[in-house]
Amino acid sequence: MRKFCPECSQAFSPADSGVKTVVFKVGLLGLGTVGTGTAEILLNPAGRHPLLQEIKIHRVGLRQLDKPRQIQLPADLLTTDLEAIVTDPEVDIVVEVMGGLEPARSLMLQAIAQGKHVVTANKAAIARYGDEIFTAANAAGVYVLLEAAVAGGIPVIEPLKQSLCANRIQAITGIINGTTNYILSRMQAEGSDFEQVLADAQALGYAEADPTADVDGLDAADKIAILASLAFGGRIKLPEVYCEGIGKISAADIAYAERLGFVIKLLATARRAAIDAPADAPLQVRVHPTLLPKTHPLASVNGVYNAILIEGDPIGEVMFFGPGAGAGPTASAVVADILNVAAILKVGRAAGSTAALPDGTPLLDPLLACSHQSYCEIAPIEALVTRFYVRFLVKDSPGVIGKLGSCFGEHQVSLESVVQIGRRDQMAEIVVITHDVREANFRQALAAIEQFDLLRQISSVLRVL
Amino acid sequence: MRKFCPECSQAFSPADSGVKTVVFKVGLLGLGTVGTGTAEILLNPAGRHPLLQEIKIHRVGLRQLDKPRQIQLPADLLTTDLEAIVTDPEVDIVVEVMGGLEPARSLMLQAIAQGKHVVTANKAAIARYGDEIFTAANAAGVYVLLEAAVAGGIPVIEPLKQSLCANRIQAITGIINGTTNYILSRMQAEGSDFEQVLADAQALGYAEADPTADVDGLDAADKIAILASLAFGGRIKLPEVYCEGIGKISAADIAYAERLGFVIKLLATARRAAIDAPADAPLQVRVHPTLLPKTHPLASVNGVYNAILIEGDPIGEVMFFGPGAGAGPTASAVVADILNVAAILKVGRAAGSTAALPDGTPLLDPLLACSHQSYCEIAPIEALVTRFYVRFLVKDSPGVIGKLGSCFGEHQVSLESVVQIGRRDQMAEIVVITHDVREANFRQALAAIEQFDLLRQISSVLRVL
Repeated sequence: MRKFCPECSQAFSPADSGVKTVVFKVGLLGLGTVGTGTAEILLNPAGRHPLLQEIKIHRVGLRQLDKPRQIQLPADLLTTDLEAIVTDPEVDIVVEVMGGLEPARSLMLQAIAQGKHVVTANKAAIARYGDEIFTAANAAGVYVLLEAAVAGGIPVIEPLKQSLCANRIQAITGIINGTTNYILSRMQAEGSDFEQVLADAQALGYAEADPTADVDGLDAADKIAILASLAFGGRIKLPEVYCEGIGKISAADIAYAERLGFVIKLLATARRAAIDAPADAPLQVRVHPTLLPKTHPLASVNGVYNAILIEGDPIGEVMFFGPGAGAGPTASAVVADILNVAAILKVGRAAGSTAALPDGTPLLDPLLACSHQSYCEIAPIEALVTRFYVRFLVKDSPGVIGKLGSCFGEHQVSLESVVQIGRRDQMAEIVVITHDVREANFRQALAAIEQFDLLRQISSVLRVL
Repeated sequence: MRKFCPECSQAFSPADSGVKTVVFKVGLLGLGTVGTGTAEILLNPAGRHPLLQEIKIHRVGLRQLDKPRQIQLPADLLTTDLEAIVTDPEVDIVVEVMGGLEPARSLMLQAIAQGKHVVTANKAAIARYGDEIFTAANAAGVYVLLEAAVAGGIPVIEPLKQSLCANRIQAITGIINGTTNYILSRMQAEGSDFEQVLADAQALGYAEADPTADVDGLDAADKIAILASLAFGGRIKLPEVYCEGIGKISAADIAYAERLGFVIKLLATARRAAIDAPADAPLQVRVHPTLLPKTHPLASVNGVYNAILIEGDPIGEVMFFGPGAGAGPTASAVVADILNVAAILKVGRAAGSTAALPDGTPLLDPLLACSHQSYCEIAPIEALVTRFYVRFLVKDSPGVIGKLGSCFGEHQVSLESVVQIGRRDQMAEIVVITHDVREANFRQALAAIEQFDLLRQISSVLRVL
């Protein structure tokens, strides 16, 4: 019976096992936070999946050899010649955890051209160059896996590809940027303003010195573009993803939202226009701060945690929750992808032949490979139908609410509630929540209201789920 | 470029594709709720993964041909001869969704012996006969996939096998029985007693006429045994799983727990004794009602929803949440498994050879196959270290709290709080919460307290997380 367990080291004595000597060699590009976490798991396989014992770090590429590091690796593994790694004939799997657009993109393409499988955590490069990278990978018959690119350690890419593949996905809604969720959670808990919490988050290492990519929603846009592509079976043009950050959210908005039963979260959404829309109907793909009812499953996701809610037919709603960043969680996802490639390689080597179509084109696992050819059509934000929250500062005069209401009405914007929240210095603060309206109509109404004499300012405009 | 997209029907014209004609034939055993949901997806592939178009229902086995059904299938697909399906040479994948122990077990074993892959939703059969079934599957070189057996549509089996395989799993804690969670949620919301809500749940179809398997925790025990086996890499003897149901939970306990900051949930737990315990240290595997702090991520999982919290190194905590039952969600998991087998078969056929070790033993994907040889050691419940909640009814006399406290102290049970909750007819109701104590010591203390003259009854004993 023992012979049926080739991959389980506990039950197998070394003498039994010719297969154990198969070793899969990893070339690691980058030894920062994620690279170090990845190396730590690979060097310390006990108690994890036994297949890990068949994976070896063959080369590690880094920018500077003499920098102090948290991990000790044999000096002869290290090199600053990254090209030498992606062209090394002994390397089976190139693990790109260096980040940035270049040279990451070129190195991945070179690795693919050399017939190497690629594992990457690089959301920015995949969101921009996925088209080029996956086309090359399919031609070369190699996998490019990227579980770590979205939501750190939370399994979401592989579940979308494999576990949920029987579904028609209707929508993905996620909190997929830990920095902004940390900032909004603290603003909510402490009543503080954005700049104050951002400065503190930077001091604590939860936000980068240049926080633009996180705070402006660009990082979340990269990630939702990747998820949308997987969920809806087409490529996404990143510039078509609508993106609005959290820089204008004030403590006042959070307090008013709270009073009305909402929390404010930076949501990334990819959604079919309607349940009964044809499969090729335009998608909404967008990132913006959103008022969420407190009872919504995503409303209680706080701090640096991420969560992704997926709606599909026939599954209904499933949610994945966990740490969206950090060395350990991200490395967990990177090493899972390495193991998935190693498992495929192991079976392929034991079969002794490569899967190919009759014309010689390599054939990859159709669930794991990414072979979308067409682009998804993305609806412009003006076509969105949603509720809005808008806060006005107006002169406190009789009839002002009536005038606002009439102007909205003239533009087909019907209102759910109009509340005068505060009054000071002869000014009144009014918060309006609309019913579901077309964004274009709402914007026209706002433009008209901007001409009102009574209006001091439109303090904020936010979408409401 | 089009030729790199063999699996994407949109981008591929029929003339391009020799591969499209490959068809994987499914033999479906059972046409109840899950079987019907499965057939509906297979017959209606538009908008789902294109590989679904290569899967055909070849035969459907059922008990009665003339029963009215929700789904129309060609009469020549239907048969009551289930053995004819598992031995049909044309069937590639046997889908067992009939439930029950026999003939499900025998039919799966026959299918495996015929070299057919098996997809099953049968937690009861897998928890009892997994040993026999997986040994046979490994010898025959076929997969037995069972995503639908635990937590309905929520992806958890495949994520454990593939996405989290780099982790040392520390614990799995789940709400994995929808019926009991529905009952407890309603008791909590309405202040009702168990029998009353159970009767209503039966009337609404949320509980079965014989609710024993759900209410006594047996269904959850089957499921946690399966999850523990995957997470800890060994087989689990089902009779060693400690199991306690929700039948004794009263409205009073729920109200007192609430007052103390807890909710009561039926938790299934599989856990290593300690973080630094060796990999082969005994596990705790148990199902029992538990007082959960209201801030715990599982505390807000209500109604028929399921959720599974997984703790591992280095990932930390991840949680999977969604519908734990129902035709659609369960069928989503069944069809995902069918597609995963079909993807493997497709690559294998294109390679034209079967993966095998040099001695001819078939080689399966080491992440997807289940080849545990050894059994996990499970610690007896007496060895558990946990907090307890206990409610006493005692004669209302001075010194009674002191006597209780002294007796617990003599048995090394230290107390976190002792609260007199109510008083009536010269009786006092006292709720004690202990610190972490060894279950054996706690039971000895309770046995001693049972001898007290002042004691009227020990109304309830529950564990506290």
